[in-house]
Amino acid sequence: MEEPRLVEVRKNVLRANDVIARDLRETFRKSGVYVVSMVSSPGSGKTAFLEKLLTLLHARCRVAALVGDLATENDALRLARSRSPVKQIVTGTVCHLEAAMVQKALAGWDLNDLDLLFIENVGNLVCPSSYDLGESLRLILMSVTEGEDKPLKYPTIFNSADVVILTKIDLAQAVDFNENAALANIQAVRPGMQVFKVSAKSGQGVGEFLDYLYSRRDALRSTAAV
Amino acid sequence: MEEPRLVEVRKNVLRANDVIARDLRETFRKSGVYVVSMVSSPGSGKTAFLEKLLTLLHARCRVAALVGDLATENDALRLARSRSPVKQIVTGTVCHLEAAMVQKALAGWDLNDLDLLFIENVGNLVCPSSYDLGESLRLILMSVTEGEDKPLKYPTIFNSADVVILTKIDLAQAVDFNENAALANIQAVRPGMQVFKVSAKSGQGVGEFLDYLYSRRDALRSTAAV
Repeated sequence: MEEPRLVEVRKNVLRANDVIARDLRETFRKSGVYVVSMVSSPGSGKTAFLEKLLTLLHARCRVAALVGDLATENDALRLARSRSPVKQIVTGTVCHLEAAMVQKALAGWDLNDLDLLFIENVGNLVCPSSYDLGESLRLILMSVTEGEDKPLKYPTIFNSADVVILTKIDLAQAVDFNENAALANIQAVRPGMQVFKVSAKSGQGVGEFLDYLYSRRDALRSTAAV
Repeated sequence: MEEPRLVEVRKNVLRANDVIARDLRETFRKSGVYVVSMVSSPGSGKTAFLEKLLTLLHARCRVAALVGDLATENDALRLARSRSPVKQIVTGTVCHLEAAMVQKALAGWDLNDLDLLFIENVGNLVCPSSYDLGESLRLILMSVTEGEDKPLKYPTIFNSADVVILTKIDLAQAVDFNENAALANIQAVRPGMQVFKVSAKSGQGVGEFLDYLYSRRDALRSTAAV
């Protein structure tokens, strides 16, 4: 359906993004900050999960977050309660974050003062998939209230992510969530993909995910040291 | 963040879409078919609501549906249970339906045999907003599980729609849904916008919405006759 010219221009935009993302990744590595991004459909619980993580991590390490939205600074205000530095990126009409937006938002922060940085993307299961933000780990959140079929319907973004976070697991029974079907659909799209079942409300599964996060970060650090 | 050239090319694509949408609207008017489109984030319950509507409407009038998704024909298979004609539009990597896709999908159907046509867009709160599909009524679905803030975060698509369908209302208590906050956010973005609270599971509110649908269709018919 797309004009060839449009596709060509998009490719150039993507290429420019990749160059900036590569620079960002190198900067993150040098500063020793581990960067985790989050994608999901709107309302999957990215901000609630992030608030839980920031609150738990605040006492253990130096953590900060960037949060993307088309409009409003609501998420940054909400996350400020965690007492971690949080900056909002307002994208206007753009349905995803780009590496240049991340780079601009980080100006003024000394990355050497950070151990962990979270980047919450705009709620969207299509646009963010092709934009590398220089992160080391990309999480895709999927709530039990969305239905089991999302991996099959949005395979590209599931493929662009490293780990699935199955959110709102406390509601699984209320919505007749078929966990086996969901897991099978995830494996059909990306065999071997790790899945964490969490509830930001009850805290279920969050500790287990944090252990995983630390192990991933430590693995990256030891590789970088070699 | 976008290259000026990209914006320009996008504008041309949109203009081309508007021309086809205008033709479609005229065709729908001549054939006497009332066309209702649905937008929402992934997992808001578009397909469940549509299945409920098709099942109820099947005995009362001649109804059909087009359903858009990036991948899979799952929705069409699911909706086929309603015994109404349903066609799947698979968009590949495109995050919205376009008027040309609707036009192509309708080839082979005699619109004179239809009273009502539903078009279910790809699950996305950004991309579909600027694409006119020739519909007479655009519904935006928002589930109580998504949180109350979506109208403020995605104002453009809420503004492009005529009516809000608040879905999964049977789960309102389980997710501590703040209805007053949600309604205030909707009114802040589009004052006077009508809201229907429904549950496809229990059937709550679906009859009330159908009455509204008939009244809108009859109002359009009487205008067209003048």
